[in-house]
Amino acid sequence: MRPIPPGGELTYQFQAEHAGIWLYHCETAPMIQHVAMGMYGAVIIDPPTLDPVAASEVFVQSEFYLGPNGGVPTMSQLLAANPNLVVFNGYANQYRDAPIHVRVGQRIRLWVLDAGPNEPSAFHVVGAQFDTVFKEGAYQLVPGNAADGAAQELDLQPGEGGFVELTLTQPGTYTLTTHRLADAERGAMGSLIADP
Amino acid sequence: MRPIPPGGELTYQFQAEHAGIWLYHCETAPMIQHVAMGMYGAVIIDPPTLDPVAASEVFVQSEFYLGPNGGVPTMSQLLAANPNLVVFNGYANQYRDAPIHVRVGQRIRLWVLDAGPNEPSAFHVVGAQFDTVFKEGAYQLVPGNAADGAAQELDLQPGEGGFVELTLTQPGTYTLTTHRLADAERGAMGSLIADP
Amino acid sequence: MRPIPPGGELTYQFQAEHAGIWLYHCETAPMIQHVAMGMYGAVIIDPPTLDPVAASEVFVQSEFYLGPNGGVPTMSQLLAANPNLVVFNGYANQYRDAPIHVRVGQRIRLWVLDAGPNEPSAFHVVGAQFDTVFKEGAYQLVPGNAADGAAQELDLQPGEGGFVELTLTQPGTYTLTTHRLADAERGAMGSLIADP
Repeated sequence: MRPIPPGGELTYQFQAEHAGIWLYHCETAPMIQHVAMGMYGAVIIDPPTLDPVAASEVFVQSEFYLGPNGGVPTMSQLLAANPNLVVFNGYANQYRDAPIHVRVGQRIRLWVLDAGPNEPSAFHVVGAQFDTVFKEGAYQLVPGNAADGAAQELDLQPGEGGFVELTLTQPGTYTLTTHRLADAERGAMGSLIADP
Repeated sequence: MRPIPPGGELTYQFQAEHAGIWLYHCETAPMIQHVAMGMYGAVIIDPPTLDPVAASEVFVQSEFYLGPNGGVPTMSQLLAANPNLVVFNGYANQYRDAPIHVRVGQRIRLWVLDAGPNEPSAFHVVGAQFDTVFKEGAYQLVPGNAADGAAQELDLQPGEGGFVELTLTQPGTYTLTTHRLADAERGAMGSLIADP
Repeated sequence: MRPIPPGGELTYQFQAEHAGIWLYHCETAPMIQHVAMGMYGAVIIDPPTLDPVAASEVFVQSEFYLGPNGGVPTMSQLLAANPNLVVFNGYANQYRDAPIHVRVGQRIRLWVLDAGPNEPSAFHVVGAQFDTVFKEGAYQLVPGNAADGAAQELDLQPGEGGFVELTLTQPGTYTLTTHRLADAERGAMGSLIADP
């Protein structure tokens, strides 16, 4: 990695070696300020044996810290880790305002990446159960596991990612959220509508 | 889900599909305020092959935020995520004041649910080792695992749960706690006494 | 456990029963203050089948809270969980000032323990992928796993530990850090240099 001047270009080439959802971000110091201003993205590399699903979505959770007059946040704000907004895919409450529609009985895969810079994600769909959980390169839960169990969340620290799979068996509106509720109330909340 | 008026009733019926310890709570907005005021509970569905143990306990970790004059907490208090008390089963330090007694050499199962609304749990029994860890529907650790390892904690984000199993081989007092020590000092600490 | 007077001694004897990286610390009240002042350490018990690696390092992440005039931190500081420094092995940024050197193509094992008292660790090496993750007594990821996946982090709550394995395939400087970036900026950041 190396700095590039305004207007410059830098091309990365890599071979996809391992499956997962990978966070990339600039490493210019102070790193936290750059990530907090949105300088990050996600790369998804599917496991080679991943089954097709009817619907697949990607959620990148991140935080906004509003600086003086809405400008660049100060380091002391960023270190205090008390964000003004916590969002999925860049906008607070966007999927509450414009819900995601899926069909009852469909198998759904939700990829989640926590871009941080500070907050964990406790990704949850109210009223649903995840029968498959993949986190940081490994399956934590698969259907028909030894305990016949399911998960209510995928937990992530900043910089981690994975996916969950679920099927909504009843029509209705399902809230998707981080279950760290302070962050949900700050905007990391949306709706998944299961249509008949 | 739908709102019910004061004095109203609403009955949920469901079939237990998957094992786990599940958090239920009202979803009335603002959700964080309702959960912080105690509007939650736990449902445990045993894995079908769960072995009997000599003693089994359930710990629900949650937080209290004391509002003005001890009343309803404000949203800014709740979003700051700096609780006044962190508790197991509703009361600060209750198991320090009234310890739980078990017997030396007995196999013990401790179910744990983190009701939040904000704090993780790093559930730990000082001086003990967990040879079995079940989290969010799957066994993370079983006796005789490949590494011959054991766990010192079950880590949970708000809304997650699981159980651990342990055997206390020496008589004495064992502190059970979250190892996020700020929360332990706020009341999420108790005693497990192993009697001869 | 029992208190010992200044100048006193107390010897613990134990048999290593289970593999893992274990945190020990005094339990004198208030526990958080003693841990925050550095009264802790790590014990590593290798899994019996652990393969030798070319290089192995141990990182204990912990926090410093600077009290009035640089003295003992107050309880309110400790409960606010807003540390002044977050460090690996006792010194802020020590591996940025004096990087750790390894060789390209070598297999490296990094043990990590989060001594807290409050902050999680999202242990990450920028630009590297972990093909092996061992956490709290169990392998979470092994080479050739079902998904052909790898991990970008080892996540730990205070009091937890494990190890990761990686190989750096290109010469250069790799940042090792917690990806909770507020803690990285406070000093939990260092450099791993892969020499040709």
